[in-house]
Amino acid sequence: MTTLDPRTAELLKRDDNGLVAAIVQQHDTGEVLMLGWMDDEALARTLTSGRVTFYSRSRQEYWRKGDTSGHVQFVHSVSIDCDGDALLIKVNQVGAACHTGTRTCFEAGGDLAAIPATPEQLNL
Amino acid sequence: MTTLDPRTAELLKRDDNGLVAAIVQQHDTGEVLMLGWMDDEALARTLTSGRVTFYSRSRQEYWRKGDTSGHVQFVHSVSIDCDGDALLIKVNQVGAACHTGTRTCFEAGGDLAAIPATPEQLNL
Repeated sequence: MTTLDPRTAELLKRDDNGLVAAIVQQHDTGEVLMLGWMDDEALARTLTSGRVTFYSRSRQEYWRKGDTSGHVQFVHSVSIDCDGDALLIKVNQVGAACHTGTRTCFEAGGDLAAIPATPEQLNL
Repeated sequence: MTTLDPRTAELLKRDDNGLVAAIVQQHDTGEVLMLGWMDDEALARTLTSGRVTFYSRSRQEYWRKGDTSGHVQFVHSVSIDCDGDALLIKVNQVGAACHTGTRTCFEAGGDLAAIPATPEQLNL
């Protein structure tokens, strides 16, 4: 077991399953790659190993990204949000972040039909 | 009530509270601004109004970003991830995204001490 620094543990606002959301972003391009979930142990491993580790809600186990696929996420930096229920993990993503083979999980799901704001509101 | 397109509703994998996570990103700079939560109604309003609307878990009410603060989020595009439990909302953020006054909620929370991967692993 990897112990999370108590000062960090104090900042976390966990959901009913003991998890916080972890947004993963490519550190240089700014692409949002995926959203995963972490408990204290997964976060501690991520902070100390240089490799992103999630807790899989569906499989109920730890999951060090890339161990099976080779699509490793190397840790650049980790921030926490103002209310402690979300993390932003900046990484270097090797290959595809998504298990479907696309670079990001949001390409895989695709765009929803939205009526966007006006070009002026968007500063376009 | 704003009705969500049934084809969109079918894609959502909601948590026990009927919510999905919504990552909000500035559309041109790539900054990740905040993470909020949406139910079907909040997503329907976001898709049809050009303004980001969340469901507040703490206040248990709809919350159209900027109505009180003036810090509006204008919708650029909305994508869904491969397993339907996360949305990526690209916006133009007026002013500060965070209620603490910082541009992003992750500046407000700050960095956690992490041992990063090597410069080579990070392509630096």
